[in-house]
Amino acid sequence: MKLLRVGPVGQERPVVMDGAGNLRDIGEPEIDGAFLASGGVARVRDALERDELPVVAAEGLRVGAPVARPGKIVCIGLNYSDHAAESGAEVPAEPVVFMKATNTMIGPYDEVLVPRNSLKTDWEVELAVIIGKRARYLGSREEAREVIAGYAVVNDVSEREFQLERGGQWDKGKSCETFNPLGPWLVTADEVPDPQNLAMRLSVNGEVRQDGVTKNMIFDVAEIVRYLSQFMVLDPGDVINTGTPAGVAMGMPGQPYLRAGDVMELEIEGLGRQRQTVGQA
Amino acid sequence: MKLLRVGPVGQERPVVMDGAGNLRDIGEPEIDGAFLASGGVARVRDALERDELPVVAAEGLRVGAPVARPGKIVCIGLNYSDHAAESGAEVPAEPVVFMKATNTMIGPYDEVLVPRNSLKTDWEVELAVIIGKRARYLGSREEAREVIAGYAVVNDVSEREFQLERGGQWDKGKSCETFNPLGPWLVTADEVPDPQNLAMRLSVNGEVRQDGVTKNMIFDVAEIVRYLSQFMVLDPGDVINTGTPAGVAMGMPGQPYLRAGDVMELEIEGLGRQRQTVGQA
Repeated sequence: MKLLRVGPVGQERPVVMDGAGNLRDIGEPEIDGAFLASGGVARVRDALERDELPVVAAEGLRVGAPVARPGKIVCIGLNYSDHAAESGAEVPAEPVVFMKATNTMIGPYDEVLVPRNSLKTDWEVELAVIIGKRARYLGSREEAREVIAGYAVVNDVSEREFQLERGGQWDKGKSCETFNPLGPWLVTADEVPDPQNLAMRLSVNGEVRQDGVTKNMIFDVAEIVRYLSQFMVLDPGDVINTGTPAGVAMGMPGQPYLRAGDVMELEIEGLGRQRQTVGQA
Repeated sequence: MKLLRVGPVGQERPVVMDGAGNLRDIGEPEIDGAFLASGGVARVRDALERDELPVVAAEGLRVGAPVARPGKIVCIGLNYSDHAAESGAEVPAEPVVFMKATNTMIGPYDEVLVPRNSLKTDWEVELAVIIGKRARYLGSREEAREVIAGYAVVNDVSEREFQLERGGQWDKGKSCETFNPLGPWLVTADEVPDPQNLAMRLSVNGEVRQDGVTKNMIFDVAEIVRYLSQFMVLDPGDVINTGTPAGVAMGMPGQPYLRAGDVMELEIEGLGRQRQTVGQA
């Protein structure tokens, strides 16, 4: 199933896309941690199969991020060897973990803002994992797979000077407003039989910049979830950005960082497309 | 005013402590971002002055963290020169910023758990700032002061091996469950005329380990809030841990890290006391 949230910012309404491409009201107040923790996905699937969900007139509606109010956004750094190389970093021996403020989350077609005093705003197409069950000290990869509600496309927008040249930790360059476009859909895990074989692509102004595949992750999705649960409690609704392949501005000749007016287009196989115009904060 | 939340985990009830030390129901559903953003502090003050708030029987009630569901916990690293020195780090040229998962937050007397596979769990007494108004690109220290709702004691519990020896970023050693005891109270900003002149102290098993004063911060509270707002949007209810003075286990001879059965006691002048027993996850 493809779950999404449509409507103005802060007034999004949760819907499901049916097999014919129609949006249907899910009959639940939100797509969030409480919905996922309480078996909401199964309830919507049953209701959809029984044809109980009314079609929503979706013409012209904005698409928001597909999960509301995540408790945290956890990110994995340098998780593709080609991106580690272009960043001048060694391939990590275990996952590099950082965090992103949750109020960075926007819809897949919303405007991304270059922060004030920024010269190095960069893109990162990534596979996002959405957690469906509370996870604490998971004992195996199999247990890790069971707590995943689904997947989505995410753009892990990053300011490289803030991240790397302003003292200390990466979070400073990852939490600027609008820096985490998510969606368009949360695709439930049952529809993604192999999350490690998805083509992913990002272009800027029509030129392909990133062209990768999730099989090149150093630490795969099951390992990331298992690993993180040794260090923190993962809650339903939490989002994990699993890392980006090569092709970011920082690693390219001339470092063509984002400027107002640029257009980013992102796609992951089976998870839909994003498109963001860049503005100036 | 001293605002607090009392009751079992997940069922805390918001109350205010009156001049006589009685707890009174505040007549609001929660102490959280929505309460702070909507002028809740002024409403409670008015109701308290008119003696409209009923006394709550508080005998034996657990005390929770004084703010519910913060959107983020932002932390400032190495913000006291003596702590930077004991950590073997240089005094930073600008604030070092990292983040902590919000589900680490517990009450001031709750049990702190040593994570599984941890040998280096450490304490950090800190002044916490609670944000009261949305803040974005603040132009001055004065504007920064105006967005602060109040202050509290926080223990920024840290696992040093996870933080420093396991690859990458500090967040990995900061987000373990129970790692952010906050409270007992949110003391409103009007009752803390000078947040830069507060004595702070932490002892373990009765031995004083940290004995500092907030005037030794490298970047003071107003500068921290102004600075952070250049990199991220601060929302009402957000918590900022402003850094710890010298005296953590990592910097001491023999590095006496926490073990199950240890007892931590923390105090900041005017902001109350915490006491946590250490358990094993």
